[in-house]
Order: sequence, then structure tokens, then C-alpha cells
Amino acid sequence: MEFTEKVIKGDVHAAARLITLIEEENPEALEEMGFLFPHTGRAYIIGVTGAPGVGKSTLLDSLIAYYRKQAMSIGVIAIDPTSALTGGALLGDRIRMQRHAADEQVFIRSLATRGWTGGLAKAALGAAHVMDAMGKDIILIETVGSGQVEIDIVKAADTTLLVMSPGSGDEIQMMKAGILESADVIAINKADTEGASRLKADLEMMREMNSWKRGDWSPPIIMTEAVNDKGAAELAEALTSHREYLKTGGGLTERRQERYQLELMELIDADIKEMIFSLDGGRLVKRLVDGLQKGKITPRDAAREIMNRLINKEG
Amino acid sequence: MEFTEKVIKGDVHAAARLITLIEEENPEALEEMGFLFPHTGRAYIIGVTGAPGVGKSTLLDSLIAYYRKQAMSIGVIAIDPTSALTGGALLGDRIRMQRHAADEQVFIRSLATRGWTGGLAKAALGAAHVMDAMGKDIILIETVGSGQVEIDIVKAADTTLLVMSPGSGDEIQMMKAGILESADVIAINKADTEGASRLKADLEMMREMNSWKRGDWSPPIIMTEAVNDKGAAELAEALTSHREYLKTGGGLTERRQERYQLELMELIDADIKEMIFSLDGGRLVKRLVDGLQKGKITPRDAAREIMNRLINKEG
Repeated sequence: MEFTEKVIKGDVHAAARLITLIEEENPEALEEMGFLFPHTGRAYIIGVTGAPGVGKSTLLDSLIAYYRKQAMSIGVIAIDPTSALTGGALLGDRIRMQRHAADEQVFIRSLATRGWTGGLAKAALGAAHVMDAMGKDIILIETVGSGQVEIDIVKAADTTLLVMSPGSGDEIQMMKAGILESADVIAINKADTEGASRLKADLEMMREMNSWKRGDWSPPIIMTEAVNDKGAAELAEALTSHREYLKTGGGLTERRQERYQLELMELIDADIKEMIFSLDGGRLVKRLVDGLQKGKITPRDAAREIMNRLINKEG
Repeated sequence: MEFTEKVIKGDVHAAARLITLIEEENPEALEEMGFLFPHTGRAYIIGVTGAPGVGKSTLLDSLIAYYRKQAMSIGVIAIDPTSALTGGALLGDRIRMQRHAADEQVFIRSLATRGWTGGLAKAALGAAHVMDAMGKDIILIETVGSGQVEIDIVKAADTTLLVMSPGSGDEIQMMKAGILESADVIAINKADTEGASRLKADLEMMREMNSWKRGDWSPPIIMTEAVNDKGAAELAEALTSHREYLKTGGGLTERRQERYQLELMELIDADIKEMIFSLDGGRLVKRLVDGLQKGKITPRDAAREIMNRLINKEG
């Protein structure tokens, strides 16, 4: 309860501390989230992705400025380690240099991508719950669009915003990563640079070809110049219109169910692994891996043996 | 057997087709891998990572040229959708423009990063088995270093090569992603550009501080100019010396056990999910997700319920 009471009052320090505990997978955090959870579900979550260098952070900075004029409170979760908004965990102090750092109503937090240790989606969605409980109206989850887990997170948002810029050739990468097809709104940043209108035309053509339409929503393509604070209002309107579409079409419920399901699977992932590694008192996996290395069994047979043991184990 | 017999004879078309079946998670592929597996374990697998723009593909191109002079056969698995080596799946024809495309002894294959659908590590390691069975001496797995799964794969290689370039500021991203600490060899590409010696000095300092040493191996830092084919020989020697270190120190066995374990967990991942989603005839997860959305239960309690059901289920 200790944290929850403070967090729902908007206590930034308590929220920051709780998010750290979540990142560290501290059992206390899990318990606290139990108390916190009933206070969540109000915030609107926007997943923002785009390749490095497209000006994602600058655009978010500009978008935040717009939302603040509407007196909306904002939470930002940056998974992109290169994020200029947070400066990344290793440059945490840079946060002071940021435009909204002094603004009580803008809570910016970066999460370290901890490589193979996993738990990133779990931490990101946990942090979103915390900011939600704080009463943030809008939560922006920012990530670079090149990792499976990172894409999971952005897709699990209410609205997925894809930021591109001319000449960066992101289209290929984004299409291959399956991001383009799940973008609800696309921002072409650096719209004043060469190739911007060409990129817009290409994307419009793809959109006509339905190559990446999600449901009957036709993703708007907004031209922005974040460095000059141009396009933020239009972008915000596009995001709002998608939110309205989801609410009226009922898609919002499904999106959120997807998100809860992702979080649920993430939460049990570690337990499942522990369960598997404890089979035969921890000897089964060792034995199978040893057999694989010696070429005595095939990966498929090893996998089958584990599944059989899981299915047939007694309580 | 159909594929295996051809693949072990080095049939490129059969190998390419089998890798496609693996990517598509075709059951036939799993069966075939059972026949193929006994023919694997000979190849040396090098994981190559680095941020986009550091010249990773150009460096690999230059490294491959060196290995070919040593009459070694090469397999390349590119997970980086922006890879210039493969041109990416959407630009498959670009492959013809590539330097080694005509070389029978160089088999280059790109894997699409299919976003949230997962299975990337499974596909990459499966493709590695195929190239291994083909008799490739060295298999290079290339990926951009920003996704958890992608990092898993690179770390699971025998040797992990991290490619950096001056001024790209990758250090932060790489450190945060936990890549730097698991790099066995570092190449500073574009060594002729400004800041190269500074980057080298910084990395050497970090190395002295043991901030990213893996065991008692001190990762060599090699200066390369891939566009001018400079440094490939030194880089190859550094990679070979790490291979020798692993063999003599016994670390190679552990690395490969890690890899088999990763593959094993990837192989059962889908089965585990199916198992969970089939609890209560598929109603349990639906019910829990619904409860989460309505705020009736907390994610932790929902996770607990699933785990209890898994532990107590009868065969």
C-alpha cells in the first residue's frame, strides 16, 4: 500500500521508485502492483516507434508541448536507449536539459533494454500501470522498431504511431518488422526535407493497396517538422480520431485485451522457465542439452520430452 | 530424408527451401531437421552485431573475401532487415549485385524479423543447422543490436563480434543492451574517420575497468576500413584466437550448451503457449484477461492462477 497511496496522489518520487522495483523484478513491486492495479485503466496509451534518426524524440517533445497546452498530463516510457527525451539511463542527468523536465505534469522515464535477460515488455507495461494510476491522461511508450519484444509493446498500445523520415529507407525495415502494417497513424517527420512528398505518395499507394490496413481504419499520414514545432496539432488530432474510432468500433476493448494477454504471458514466462528447469530436480534440461551437444537426440525430440514431462507431471 | 540427403551434399536450392520451411514453421521442416541434426556441430558460428550505419555488411563482405582466400566455405544468416549483404527479403534481387553472390561457397540468407509473431531465434538457429550440415566452415549470423531476441541469437554464437564506428554513439546503446559486455571481439570500422582512435581509447579504458570482460578473455579491439578492405585479416585472426581460447579453455562447450538450451526453449515456447491457452478448454486465459480488463483481478493473481493450473493439471 505504501507506494500505491503516494502514486495515486501523483507522487513522482514514489512512482519512479516503484518503476525501478518493477525493472528489478523485486517481489515487493509485484505485491504493490496488486494494490495499484484497481486504480488503472483510465490512461490512453500510445506506442511510438520509428528507426533511429527519424526525429522521434523531437516529435514527441513537440507533441507533449501540444498536449500540455490542452492541460493534459503526460507519461513517457522510453525503451529506446538512444532516446533524446530521457538521454537514456546512462545519461540520466541529461533529463534536466529537457524541455518538459521541470513540468510536474510530464513524467518521463527510460527503461534499459537489458538484452537477453528479458522482462522488457513486463517492465514497460508495469511502468504504464504506474503512470496510469498516477492519473496521466496520455502515456507515450517510445521504442526503436527493430526488436521483436519492442514491437510487441508498441503493438499492445491503444494506438500505434509510426514515425518516419525521408530518405532513411525505413519503409523496408518497418515492413519487414511488421510495424508498417500495424501503424494506426504515420508521421513523416522532417517533412521539409527532400523526398518527403515522395515518401508520403509511396505510403499512400501502399495504403490504397491495403497492404497494411488494420481493420477498416485507414491510417492517416501526417507531415511534421518537429524541430520547428510544425504538425504537432494535426498529429494529435489524428491520434485522437483513431482513439474515437477504437471506442466507437469497439476495437479499444480488443486492443486492451491483447495488451493484458501479453502482460499475462510475460508475467508467467519466468515461472514457466523455472518450472521447466526444475523438472527431474533440474536434471532434465541439463541431460537434454548434453544429449543435443553429443548429437544423441534431436532438438525436436528434446522439446517433445520436456512437453511430455510437463503434461504428465503430477501436482 | 529428401532434404537432408541433398543438403549434406551442399545443394543450395534444397538448403534454401528447407530454411524457408523452417521460417514458415512447417511441420515437415521439424521432421527433416531430425534427420539433418546428426550432420551438424562442425561449423564455427560467429554472431555479428552493431547499430545500423556502422558498415557491418561491408565489413562482413570484406571478411568473407578474406575467408574465401583461405578456401573456407561461408554461410551468412542476416537478421538485420537493412542488411546490404542480402538486401533484405523485400529486395531479394539485390543479392545479385553482391560481391559473393556468384560464389558457390558463400551461402547468404536473410530472415525476416516478423515482429510479434516470434520464432526468430528458432528460425536463425535452424538455418544455422542447415548451413552447418551443408558443410560450411564458418557461419556468420548478422543482426542489428537493438532487440532482445536478436541479442539472444548473437550471444548464443561461439564468438560474438561487435562492430562499431566513430561518432555513432553506439557505446551507450550497446552497453544498455548488454551487448558490449558480451562482445568477444570488437571491430572499430571506418577507422580512418574522425574519433576512431578516441573510441578505441574509450573502449580500452572500459576493458581495463573490466566493465565488460567475459571470463578471462580480454576482447581485442581491431581497427578496420571495410570500404578499403583494410583490417579484415587482423579481424579474422582475432576471431580465430578467440575460437582457440574457447577450445582450450573449454568455454566452447558451455557456449554451445547455452545455444542448444536457447534453441530448446524456443522450440517449446509455442507448445507451452498452446498448453496455456487450452486450459479449461481455452476458457481460462479468456476469463482472466476479461477479469483484468474489468479490474476484478490483478495481473499477479491471474498469473498465479495459470501457474497453479499448470502445476496441478493431470496428464
